[in-house]
Amino acid sequence: MSEYLAPLKDMQFTLELVRQHTGLDQIEVLAEMTPDFANTILAEAAKFATGVLSPLNQVGDQQGCRFDNGTVITPPGWQQAYQQFCDNGWMGLAMTEAAGGQALPRFIAQPVNEMWLSANLAFVMFHALNQGGSDILRHFGSATQQQRYLEPLASGQWTIAMALTEPGAGSDLAATTTKATPLANGDYRIKGQKIFITYGEHDMAANIIHLVLARTPDAPAGSRGISLFAVPKYRIEADGSLGAHNDVVCSGIEHKMGLHGSPTCSISYGDHDDCIGELIGAENQGLMAMFVLMNEARLSTGMQGVGFGELSYQHALRYAQERSQGSHYQNGTRVTINQHPDVQRMLLTMRSQTMGLRALGYLLAAWIDLAEHSSDEQQRQQLRGQIALLTPVFKAFGTEQGNQMSYTCLQVFGGMGFVEETGIAQFMRDARIITIYEGTTGIQARDLLFRKILADKGTALRCLLRHIHQDADRLATPLAELQSNLIHSVAAMQNQLEALLDSANKTSEQTRLHAGSVPLLDALGILCVGWQLALLADQACIRGDSDADYHRNLIAQARFYFAHEMPRIQALLATVADADNGLKDFDFNAAG
Amino acid sequence: MSEYLAPLKDMQFTLELVRQHTGLDQIEVLAEMTPDFANTILAEAAKFATGVLSPLNQVGDQQGCRFDNGTVITPPGWQQAYQQFCDNGWMGLAMTEAAGGQALPRFIAQPVNEMWLSANLAFVMFHALNQGGSDILRHFGSATQQQRYLEPLASGQWTIAMALTEPGAGSDLAATTTKATPLANGDYRIKGQKIFITYGEHDMAANIIHLVLARTPDAPAGSRGISLFAVPKYRIEADGSLGAHNDVVCSGIEHKMGLHGSPTCSISYGDHDDCIGELIGAENQGLMAMFVLMNEARLSTGMQGVGFGELSYQHALRYAQERSQGSHYQNGTRVTINQHPDVQRMLLTMRSQTMGLRALGYLLAAWIDLAEHSSDEQQRQQLRGQIALLTPVFKAFGTEQGNQMSYTCLQVFGGMGFVEETGIAQFMRDARIITIYEGTTGIQARDLLFRKILADKGTALRCLLRHIHQDADRLATPLAELQSNLIHSVAAMQNQLEALLDSANKTSEQTRLHAGSVPLLDALGILCVGWQLALLADQACIRGDSDADYHRNLIAQARFYFAHEMPRIQALLATVADADNGLKDFDFNAAG
Repeated sequence: MSEYLAPLKDMQFTLELVRQHTGLDQIEVLAEMTPDFANTILAEAAKFATGVLSPLNQVGDQQGCRFDNGTVITPPGWQQAYQQFCDNGWMGLAMTEAAGGQALPRFIAQPVNEMWLSANLAFVMFHALNQGGSDILRHFGSATQQQRYLEPLASGQWTIAMALTEPGAGSDLAATTTKATPLANGDYRIKGQKIFITYGEHDMAANIIHLVLARTPDAPAGSRGISLFAVPKYRIEADGSLGAHNDVVCSGIEHKMGLHGSPTCSISYGDHDDCIGELIGAENQGLMAMFVLMNEARLSTGMQGVGFGELSYQHALRYAQERSQGSHYQNGTRVTINQHPDVQRMLLTMRSQTMGLRALGYLLAAWIDLAEHSSDEQQRQQLRGQIALLTPVFKAFGTEQGNQMSYTCLQVFGGMGFVEETGIAQFMRDARIITIYEGTTGIQARDLLFRKILADKGTALRCLLRHIHQDADRLATPLAELQSNLIHSVAAMQNQLEALLDSANKTSEQTRLHAGSVPLLDALGILCVGWQLALLADQACIRGDSDADYHRNLIAQARFYFAHEMPRIQALLATVADADNGLKDFDFNAAG
Repeated sequence: MSEYLAPLKDMQFTLELVRQHTGLDQIEVLAEMTPDFANTILAEAAKFATGVLSPLNQVGDQQGCRFDNGTVITPPGWQQAYQQFCDNGWMGLAMTEAAGGQALPRFIAQPVNEMWLSANLAFVMFHALNQGGSDILRHFGSATQQQRYLEPLASGQWTIAMALTEPGAGSDLAATTTKATPLANGDYRIKGQKIFITYGEHDMAANIIHLVLARTPDAPAGSRGISLFAVPKYRIEADGSLGAHNDVVCSGIEHKMGLHGSPTCSISYGDHDDCIGELIGAENQGLMAMFVLMNEARLSTGMQGVGFGELSYQHALRYAQERSQGSHYQNGTRVTINQHPDVQRMLLTMRSQTMGLRALGYLLAAWIDLAEHSSDEQQRQQLRGQIALLTPVFKAFGTEQGNQMSYTCLQVFGGMGFVEETGIAQFMRDARIITIYEGTTGIQARDLLFRKILADKGTALRCLLRHIHQDADRLATPLAELQSNLIHSVAAMQNQLEALLDSANKTSEQTRLHAGSVPLLDALGILCVGWQLALLADQACIRGDSDADYHRNLIAQARFYFAHEMPRIQALLATVADADNGLKDFDFNAAG
């Protein structure tokens, strides 16, 4: 019913734009990463996404995971799909060759990831965990540890679980209480309870490596006293073979609104004082390792927004093209609902938002490659600043829009969307967590405004705005309308930036800054999507008649977005300027 | 876990404002409807909502209805609660005394309804059906029919089911195919399939009266050939006692995203050619009867948005006051999350939106009373125009905001909100249908722009804008900021209205008008909520020190709304003016 088809043409067009626009096509070490090469990989991934993962998406939702006395049974078909995923080499796609991976650059891995996320997010969550866990081990693990873990993670023989959250602590890692007591042999004895652990227990891999945040006995209080430990479900012998069951017990899984196929586990470490882990990196440096993972995870979560957007758009479009209802607004004949301008409005909202966010996500991936491979240190540094700036924007705005689009998709389906069998309600239920995990929208907005803008004295944002302005200046003549809108919006953002910097150190302005951080993030999100849509339209103008209908659509969707979404920038910036009005006087205890 | 407490103070304050503002307090026949009298009823309803209905809300969600061989078993506790609801006289609260009801005016029944909708929407849906069905029978039924049906409906002995939708037809009633063949005795033989029938079958009442849309043999095609029939589940003997089972068979219930406690039935009428119904009103006048019901139902559905808003606000507030997480943005101490300005922003968004929408809902109810009781025919006519204008706005904007607020509530709960046991996810799942049933948001927007504004040549909207302007002019001095914002927004809407009227008859503008209808509706919704919040704030200024903290909050919430929501009006109107940009050039068949 709810089959996902990878939008290969859109992906390839976007990828090629990003490659050229960033200058990634000039990087020598990536010379083999031609469009043809990328297309081959994307085509293979599309087959797997549509043929294997997508059909299991509704199965996972309807059957869910089962918890049985410490074990977790994944939905029917999960185990076989996992094996295929690993056998086909998808797990190690972007991991290093030394680890047995294929070292694919990020900009090509990104559309592949997008397909997994659209086709079956609940299933594929282990992938981001293995990718992120490998990154942590590469950055912070000893040579022995890398030797021990990286290969089985790249092959999918083992999976990673991140044990961060404790009961009652949520996003607040500073409150971690799990204990790690050093042993004579250099290992640690771990003891504590963790919750909300994705794939903390499952039946698809031979071993699960839990990366656990815990405190050593003399650790300082707060976030500076947290260390990171690798705690395998089965202990690992010196030769790499699996030994005894570690004292790691899954005590239950959550009954969630969505993502039923992905087990969210509560785990007890060391109930019998026999849970052994090894330190990753230095003591008390655990949060630093987490930050590596977190930035990765935030970008990946932002792509989930794109994934839901695509899923929503294509299902709504197909349904609207088939569903006959009502009469044409001009000639009165009975029509399919895609003829109603308001349905077209909903479809184009999803289409344009998804296309713009996708381009932004691919751009970020390309920047990561460029920041790694460019020979120009100044450029590398600047890119790191741009990535840091846009990571919270992409995560928060992308996921909020992903939710909005799954909501709009259901609206197009009408009453049929509310019926579970249709498979559309699942998108909304699954998507609901993505604005929360890996840092809520509020946390992203705070990171954006206070760390990425104010602490940076606006340098990165000024650079971004300059970049957008330069791109706007160069837009093809038929896009003059978009050009002036973009330049106008950049100027408004610039003014707001200066005003924010003026307020940064005033005590009386702090409430306003905090209360205005989400509206500011939204405004920047809209601006970035508008920018990317303008670039896609520009590319369409350049390519012109070769595929005229497709190119005309790229221009049309940009125009639509500029008419329907860009006006919100001014409204949001007005709110930023006045965000504490009323809020600072309201007494919640006196209400009602 | 998810206990609902009726916001009696907010309700009473709003009710009194509306009573005075409309001049309802000057209507002689309503002289007994004093604030004290209203408060007594609200206090009783609050006890029932909190004590009986609210505890069953999660039960209904988790256990749902069961379908068993043609019968529907409601969730545990449903039958007893239904009996109590009827015994306490809540069913007939606003029905006529002749029918055994209590003839309570609408403006007092409205807050009572709000409580039912917040406490347990899935349960209480039979109430709006009995109310609406009684209205239809009062308007269109013969004296004998009224005699037969009204009393058992007011007492709750019987319930009403509305059988409108047919498989594959959705909102499109013109496509009705169910047949009604006249019999010699004046009855009709009914044959057809209907779906999406709320409480079409259940185990709480002795009989169910299906109001079925069907076509007589020679009926004209389309919407002018539809008649309305009363089809009882058990036939009714001449003495009013119940006879044989009619040929009305429930063939299944839907497995829905939400409202699990409310059975949504598929019904076969006349599978054995033995389904007998009687005509209500004249042949081919069925849609007219539906319109009576529909306007009622739309207002009631708009109140569901308020109900979800209140539910969302109060749960999010309580949780935020208890949940300790993160550190204070200025002094660094560990705090409950209600200390974070971004959480306050979310709470105040829900608070202000709910309060403003509630006032609008109560105002509409008061206008209905006034349109019935005023001695001034010109006023009555004007009021009918205002009610007709604002019904689609209240329905669509109210329900969209109700959804938005249930989403925001879950955001405040974070990961805990995604876990079903918390009870918050249910709000989002339940609310998702309210923007769809009783006419989707798109259908409301089309009704607003084409019937209520353009066909009316802007008369009713001009009248409304004049009204808002006059109210703005009279605002208390401390509200000068709100005053100028309101006047500015009214002027912007006025300009847009004249532009729309200019375009009304131009063929080339029709796509733009249709594509801009939802943004226009949203802009008008925000304006109306802002207007109502300003009036509440004004009343707070007048009452002043009597309950200073509460009154200060009413002013603060208005200021907040004006800073956070009112700027969107300009953005939305800009979109209205440019709504077909890109849309008319996009070819959905050439995408991807």
